[in-house]
Amino acid sequence: MLDFSNGSAFVDEKFVPISEAKISLLDWGFLHSDATYDVAHVRGGKFFRLNDHLDRFFSGMKMLRMSIPYTRKELTAILSDCVSKSGLQEAYVEMITTRGLPEPGSRDPRTCRNRFFAFAIPFVWITTPGKGLELIVSQRQRIPPQSVNPTVKNYHWLDLVMGQFEAYDKGGETVAVVNGKGNIAEGPGFNIFAVKNGILTTPGEGVLEGITRKTAIEIANELGYDVIQGELSPEAARSADELFATSTAGGIMAITKIDCQKVSTGKVGPITLELQDRYWALHNNPHYAYEIHY
Amino acid sequence: MLDFSNGSAFVDEKFVPISEAKISLLDWGFLHSDATYDVAHVRGGKFFRLNDHLDRFFSGMKMLRMSIPYTRKELTAILSDCVSKSGLQEAYVEMITTRGLPEPGSRDPRTCRNRFFAFAIPFVWITTPGKGLELIVSQRQRIPPQSVNPTVKNYHWLDLVMGQFEAYDKGGETVAVVNGKGNIAEGPGFNIFAVKNGILTTPGEGVLEGITRKTAIEIANELGYDVIQGELSPEAARSADELFATSTAGGIMAITKIDCQKVSTGKVGPITLELQDRYWALHNNPHYAYEIHY
Repeated sequence: MLDFSNGSAFVDEKFVPISEAKISLLDWGFLHSDATYDVAHVRGGKFFRLNDHLDRFFSGMKMLRMSIPYTRKELTAILSDCVSKSGLQEAYVEMITTRGLPEPGSRDPRTCRNRFFAFAIPFVWITTPGKGLELIVSQRQRIPPQSVNPTVKNYHWLDLVMGQFEAYDKGGETVAVVNGKGNIAEGPGFNIFAVKNGILTTPGEGVLEGITRKTAIEIANELGYDVIQGELSPEAARSADELFATSTAGGIMAITKIDCQKVSTGKVGPITLELQDRYWALHNNPHYAYEIHY
Repeated sequence: MLDFSNGSAFVDEKFVPISEAKISLLDWGFLHSDATYDVAHVRGGKFFRLNDHLDRFFSGMKMLRMSIPYTRKELTAILSDCVSKSGLQEAYVEMITTRGLPEPGSRDPRTCRNRFFAFAIPFVWITTPGKGLELIVSQRQRIPPQSVNPTVKNYHWLDLVMGQFEAYDKGGETVAVVNGKGNIAEGPGFNIFAVKNGILTTPGEGVLEGITRKTAIEIANELGYDVIQGELSPEAARSADELFATSTAGGIMAITKIDCQKVSTGKVGPITLELQDRYWALHNNPHYAYEIHY
């Protein structure tokens, strides 16, 4: 019997334990990071906003001129089966399309057959619920939209990983990299929001348009808060009443320190708490939940 | 008997046929393109300038805060064995270090054990010898040095791959992407040189410092040509007497068309030919050649 308890994957049209989930070294998905992906999460045996993740995934493939031989319905079944095989009730579910391998001797991406991979692993938290993140603002620039379209979810993360090392060096635990103007862009896997006098600001361009970001904006609007999608300077972030990060890997997470200084009182702020409560409550909304049959 | 004739690889401390060379989907080398690599080539059973490739590879690892448990001598032996097992006399030999996998549930790259991979495959030509490349200059920007250090050889290539598609759309076969000033940066896996009135110009910053680029500069200087490492505008490239590309995957290769127009007469130019001859002749220089024992 194969052991899927640590996670399961779908590779070469077969389900395998996560420990056996591998990709050819020659796939351009590895050799040129020529891939797009998406990550949905499962909570209590239900996907959250799976349709939004699928929309973004199919849109990303189109922009990279990739395709997979699955309909939306078939893809949903593969992802659900990945989770049900693992038995995980709380999972992090990744779907990936890579360019594949060109014909032998060729360097022409048009000769590649695109390949699809998926895996489900235990849910990964960027930070433990309730614990505030300690953020460092780096001068490192996020790869700009003129180079790589940030709305196509991609694995070009060396800027973020090296920023993360810088954050550790400076006594923080995670990083925000900046855009070409020196304003805050995003962190490794998360978007950033600042709250000042009841108004929310989140970077508007050059960032991944996160599903959790979108959810936070929708919730804030419903609660009557204005949300500005625009420039967020490091100074504005440092003087904010509240700061939080949004990510599929943890939801809405307070940032309680920035550049080793407390954000306001250093406690999780009231608007952050309000948004968190609504965010998790939304997981039971049938409009957003897709139930997995184990 | 394992069949290594299509290439061989070194994975998890074992030699395997290239068809079995795989990496875990969870390795950050794939999931975050958090890796550095180098490619040396073998011609007539000898590595060319292997020491320069090793210098760059070790320097890249240091800058990414990675390490491998091999000395330079041990690494050389692994690479040589990769080639000798394949029996290939003309080979493309890649060495790779990835971040590896963090501890379960962690997103901290400091918990990763870095991993080393290598493979030898039949030599890949960017263009057939003697045939000139047809280049398109794209407005797409190469990922800037403020985001990712281009002197650390990396797999962040989506800008180059999408530029390549653009080149096909426009009737060319390969692409040059630009820097933030709109001047030429580099192509997918190659540096670019323009020759005008006997003076060579090649982009000086924001590009990979290619070993073939370095060799071309050294040869040009020996032959008495000045080489400017600085800005190369698309206009200057279009009005050049000669254009050529340099890469481990093909050496010094003429570019005979730019933006669908002939470069000068459209023939391979005399200085390009002179450099090509010297380049291949250098492969027999004991100072640069490292013999493989098959």
